[in-house]
Amino acid sequence: MKALLIGGLSAALLATGAYAQPLEPKDQVKNRKAGYQFMAWNMGKIKAQVVDESVPYDPLKVQAAANAIAAVANSGMGELFSPGTSRAELGKQTRLKADFFKNLDEASRLGREFNLAANQLASVAASGDKGAIKAAFGETGKTCKSCHDKFRHD
Amino acid sequence: MKALLIGGLSAALLATGAYAQPLEPKDQVKNRKAGYQFMAWNMGKIKAQVVDESVPYDPLKVQAAANAIAAVANSGMGELFSPGTSRAELGKQTRLKADFFKNLDEASRLGREFNLAANQLASVAASGDKGAIKAAFGETGKTCKSCHDKFRHD
Repeated sequence: MKALLIGGLSAALLATGAYAQPLEPKDQVKNRKAGYQFMAWNMGKIKAQVVDESVPYDPLKVQAAANAIAAVANSGMGELFSPGTSRAELGKQTRLKADFFKNLDEASRLGREFNLAANQLASVAASGDKGAIKAAFGETGKTCKSCHDKFRHD
Repeated sequence: MKALLIGGLSAALLATGAYAQPLEPKDQVKNRKAGYQFMAWNMGKIKAQVVDESVPYDPLKVQAAANAIAAVANSGMGELFSPGTSRAELGKQTRLKADFFKNLDEASRLGREFNLAANQLASVAASGDKGAIKAAFGETGKTCKSCHDKFRHD
């Protein structure tokens, strides 16, 4: 997975895209929300099994969930964050703060940290070590929260 | 990836889930729509590069997109298809036909075919062979269409 980190948020923010025509703002929002929603569902499954222990721990299910999170993280979502796609321009369609585009270095850093944590979670999930998964899950969650706190409206 | 096929639609339809409490119908719909939307975005990126050739072919981007599709396919979305989550019960929230739940064997078969095709696409994408990717992309698209034609409202 590590070789694909370049597909993450940071690379896309720093590089010009390979796509002549970026998607329409509403479609960027639709796709990025889909990615975050799908990751949230998979984070929830891991949490239930290794943190809350409200459902039995199934290593293959945790592995599948972690792989989904990492693959979404590695898929190049930065292309879905063109300037002009924050709440300032799009209203309630999106919770992205306009500050995101005024702090692209910080956004890139947070995106990189998330990608690294998500790939680490997938790597640890493959080992089946529940304690290590719990720790890596916590680290991943922290990187989600860092970006939400800074760049997402409540 | 192949070891995770059991996390796909077919397994979840055939087995009882590990989750005591399935998600609320509206949340099942929200998460499954997110998964399909995210896969559609990634299918579109591959199509643009290897079929339409409207953007330059970037092997790492195609690989990242194919990995995302396969990982979503392998993530156990069958848990998001509880009885009572079709258009008959939920209206415009979902395009899932009620027929889906009257034909679970067929739904399982189509789900298995999609999973196999998505994993094959990811495998071929890793090789970087554009022609082989185009063929595997076509096969994957056919499995999407088979299920849409049968079980999705227009």
